[in-house]
Amino acid sequence: MTAQGGDLRGRFITLEGGEGAGKSTQVKRLAATLSAHGIEAVLTREPGGTPGAEDIRALLVTGDPDRWDAMTETLLHYAARRAHVEKTVKPALARGAWVISDRFADSTMAYQGYAGAVGREAIADLHKLVLGDFQPDLTLVLDLPVEAGLARAKARMQGGIRQTLDVAEDRYERMGLAFHETLRKAFHDIAAREPQRCRLIDAGGDPDQVAAALWQAVAAKFNLTP
Amino acid sequence: MTAQGGDLRGRFITLEGGEGAGKSTQVKRLAATLSAHGIEAVLTREPGGTPGAEDIRALLVTGDPDRWDAMTETLLHYAARRAHVEKTVKPALARGAWVISDRFADSTMAYQGYAGAVGREAIADLHKLVLGDFQPDLTLVLDLPVEAGLARAKARMQGGIRQTLDVAEDRYERMGLAFHETLRKAFHDIAAREPQRCRLIDAGGDPDQVAAALWQAVAAKFNLTP
Repeated sequence: MTAQGGDLRGRFITLEGGEGAGKSTQVKRLAATLSAHGIEAVLTREPGGTPGAEDIRALLVTGDPDRWDAMTETLLHYAARRAHVEKTVKPALARGAWVISDRFADSTMAYQGYAGAVGREAIADLHKLVLGDFQPDLTLVLDLPVEAGLARAKARMQGGIRQTLDVAEDRYERMGLAFHETLRKAFHDIAAREPQRCRLIDAGGDPDQVAAALWQAVAAKFNLTP
Repeated sequence: MTAQGGDLRGRFITLEGGEGAGKSTQVKRLAATLSAHGIEAVLTREPGGTPGAEDIRALLVTGDPDRWDAMTETLLHYAARRAHVEKTVKPALARGAWVISDRFADSTMAYQGYAGAVGREAIADLHKLVLGDFQPDLTLVLDLPVEAGLARAKARMQGGIRQTLDVAEDRYERMGLAFHETLRKAFHDIAAREPQRCRLIDAGGDPDQVAAALWQAVAAKFNLTP
């Protein structure tokens, strides 16, 4: 079931991609553009997006980063995702709002499935078990060469605009180029396998250019006036 | 793989059963008896049993009891279980210690699988995904008529010896006789389906009688001198 199915009248759009791709900036831009078109846009994020899931996020991003093995981490992500979908995403879609999420299931598939120790098949099985056929209507994968993304992420940290809780993401940023190349290839592969759902967006331009490319993809997908 | 397989030299024993069956008393008795026989016994519990898993336990037993739907609750239990098995149970078994756990996977199967909304098949699939074939060597199911168990649990609460965190268990205790009858039947069914692993123990006697019955079952299973 995608958001088009059943009683979910809104649309569910996710932004995915590696570190420094500009996701948190672009989800806000996209929500603002939708609002300007008279569409109620709910901005959310993973892990998190509902009070219980934010508590699980705190477990994931605080404390010794190695206290969870990859499978435990994956289960915590899916516990948070289940709460997020049931308490925030589906209720918003049911009332006709559009939901824009900064990361969703493709991040778990990329980080713990392709690049991590859990493997792709186990992640796919877990998704099916927890969420059935529920998937975004549209996933925008922000694509950027690894060096450029890490340079942006580093500048952002030095600029002090990171949230203090994001130590787990800092950990990913420290994991070396090979890890991030694997991630980038993972997102390419996910997009290539599901061309109906996914659009690969060049995130190398300035924020205005990227926002324009994202909006073009959204408008084309849902037949909106650009 | 049970604890007998591979490099796990110790034995893994779990105590299961409904509310007021005396599990927390009897795990201590059993550990003491094993120690008296010269066996290193590690006492543990679920949810919890390792620092990360105890943090997940706190999420399960604090806050609004309805903040998690049954599937989210199940995923949190399995995240905690995975951490518990990887960080506490397997390392202890590997060095030859015996591990006694107050609750384990059968509780999730009974509460969320038989009595809850998740269903037995989904719990079994999740167990396989997260822990493969890992199971206790011996599971002792403490069996007690529902009214007797709830009366004991109530007396224990009024006696003030409950841990302050156990609000979730209090919630279960308030869920009515029909729920607890379903739970009791669930544990009976689990024991009947896996007679090699499970022993149903009458928990209706005084603590000394129950401890003697448990020890008899353990000694018989592992060929120890009673």
